Amino acid sequence: MHDAPAPVSDITYEDLAQLEQEFDDAELQTLREQHKIYAPLYKKRQEVVAKIPNFWALVLEQAPTEFENYVTPSDSQVFAEALKSIEVERFEINEPNGSPRSVVIRFRFDPNNEFFEDEVLEKRFWHRRALDGWSGIVSEPVKIHWKKGKDLTQGLTDAAVDLFAARKKQDAAAQNGSSNGSSKASKASKITKLPEYKAILNKIDTNTEASLSFFTWFGFISSHGYVTAEESAEASKKEAEKREKRAKGEKVEEEEEAEIDDDDDFFDESEICPNGEDVAEIIVNELWPQAIKYFTAAQEADDDDLSELSDAELDDDDDDDLDEPVDIRSLVRGKGKKEQNGNNGSSASPPPKKRRT
Amino acid sequence: MHDAPAPVSDITYEDLAQLEQEFDDAELQTLREQHKIYAPLYKKRQEVVAKIPNFWALVLEQAPTEFENYVTPSDSQVFAEALKSIEVERFEINEPNGSPRSVVIRFRFDPNNEFFEDEVLEKRFWHRRALDGWSGIVSEPVKIHWKKGKDLTQGLTDAAVDLFAARKKQDAAAQNGSSNGSSKASKASKITKLPEYKAILNKIDTNTEASLSFFTWFGFISSHGYVTAEESAEASKKEAEKREKRAKGEKVEEEEEAEIDDDDDFFDESEICPNGEDVAEIIVNELWPQAIKYFTAAQEADDDDLSELSDAELDDDDDDDLDEPVDIRSLVRGKGKKEQNGNNGSSASPPPKKRRT
Repeated sequence: MHDAPAPVSDITYEDLAQLEQEFDDAELQTLREQHKIYAPLYKKRQEVVAKIPNFWALVLEQAPTEFENYVTPSDSQVFAEALKSIEVERFEINEPNGSPRSVVIRFRFDPNNEFFEDEVLEKRFWHRRALDGWSGIVSEPVKIHWKKGKDLTQGLTDAAVDLFAARKKQDAAAQNGSSNGSSKASKASKITKLPEYKAILNKIDTNTEASLSFFTWFGFISSHGYVTAEESAEASKKEAEKREKRAKGEKVEEEEEAEIDDDDDFFDESEICPNGEDVAEIIVNELWPQAIKYFTAAQEADDDDLSELSDAELDDDDDDDLDEPVDIRSLVRGKGKKEQNGNNGSSASPPPKKRRT
Repeated sequence: MHDAPAPVSDITYEDLAQLEQEFDDAELQTLREQHKIYAPLYKKRQEVVAKIPNFWALVLEQAPTEFENYVTPSDSQVFAEALKSIEVERFEINEPNGSPRSVVIRFRFDPNNEFFEDEVLEKRFWHRRALDGWSGIVSEPVKIHWKKGKDLTQGLTDAAVDLFAARKKQDAAAQNGSSNGSSKASKASKITKLPEYKAILNKIDTNTEASLSFFTWFGFISSHGYVTAEESAEASKKEAEKREKRAKGEKVEEEEEAEIDDDDDFFDESEICPNGEDVAEIIVNELWPQAIKYFTAAQEADDDDLSELSDAELDDDDDDDLDEPVDIRSLVRGKGKKEQNGNNGSSASPPPKKRRT
């Protein structure tokens, strides 16, 4: 690169792109190291908190305000009555071609809950690269087997699952059919003709309240549009070739990407949870690593009248030295309150965020 | 701990505090690993961007909106005309008793700038533990040698430096004098009697505009009140003893901390940059690691009319494959515009934040 002094105009965008590439690699390496350090701790925490009823419901109650916007009182009721645990895993971290950015978020529920048949709702996010140069996470709609009259999304998640299945079928047919059907633009125009596409747009328009439910998040696909594993492999191969050229100081061709932008807008319209990526990010980067802090804050809010805990315990530190057992009764009684009061954690302020300076 | 199945009520706050402690240690370890991975990259980046005039001023122009709130048009003018570089270092990371959370932020300026005599303004943040259990970063006011009529803080930073010096002098006298003078509460009441304390409160009241200048940040002390290295060492020793007890499963005494809260309020009043910790956090965790992305976004905003760069380059990725040299002229001409237009980057939206999910 430019280790020797060079005239100012010698710095090119190529040089900066090369540097950015190295920063990106460093981030991946950091994620791997971080995973090694935290994995045994998360396991240990899971064992401890499994013994505290409503632990995760209480964590969600004290969630950061950005998260609260995605949870309705009815959602909170489901969490309070049926949520058993949350688990976050970087499921590709040990795969040779996997990304440490790929992540699965698993919600475990009471198998006898009154809302749906599912004991586990598992949302998987793959970090993929699209042929237009975009990279980020994509997911697939998760089927929720709602019990009769209990669907908080009023059929939105079902519609997302149906549309996704129809698109897959269409893609498979296109692969066996005419070759020009595989371009992104023509793919998009074909999807808009699917009855499932029209159905979901109609459902979104007529169910504005249902679209506020947290459970629409299980139908989230991507902020960019779905990218298949095959497309991602092809894009990654192209990207690796570019990188090799760049490292050798060779010129790299820019591809034509104009038509893709329209696609993005088009995909957005059928997305039932447009902020799905933000929701995932808050769970993975805030709620999951800081769960005990949020739980302690929830305990504090619950125990306020009893004055059992001092103010100092809400401090951004870990000096909470009470050796009293966690007050299970005060946790469980939350259930009864929920039914009238819904999201009763929303007025309490979240615990101070951890500073990393 | 609780590896064997145990009745629910056996989980205590002590167990959770012990876990939190382990998470805190894991965070420190992660910071160390991250430092090893990124240190050579930051060095390389510094060499490359040193060849791009106004690189850091342009990064600041495209700063996240939270940061923009702390920068006035006059501040932007200083950056555009005189800022040479920004450096962030974890200066205690290799010290046996140091914290990887301690950080120094260094601003280098043109030595012939019209605003102040200083070539370097260096703000140091120590991560310390107070005797009341709080831990976080503290700093000391930095003297800025403003040229005549150029002080954007209207004497606020000078006043902060003066008050800090007076407090130090008072502390030293107290250590040689009566022993009861060292309690936190009496210390506080003594500080309010200092003429420098009254002077700074008066200055804050009468200079509301000046207190918006970014440069007040150099006078920032702490969100908690200053903690000396000695106090921190004593508090850390006590904390280590507690941890040892906790690890052995022994009971840990809670200390009386009620009076400290009043102190905090009191310290806040003389703080000329109450959000100083947030400012430091944005620089360390956003602007510093993502500098090239912010710079590229600034270039994009500047070149908009010329349509030299495609929209795709603002994407959250590093596929900007132009091999054109960085357009220095468009960077430097920013200067002229600044004087009428001030913070002209404020209307452009920041680049998309990097997702870590």
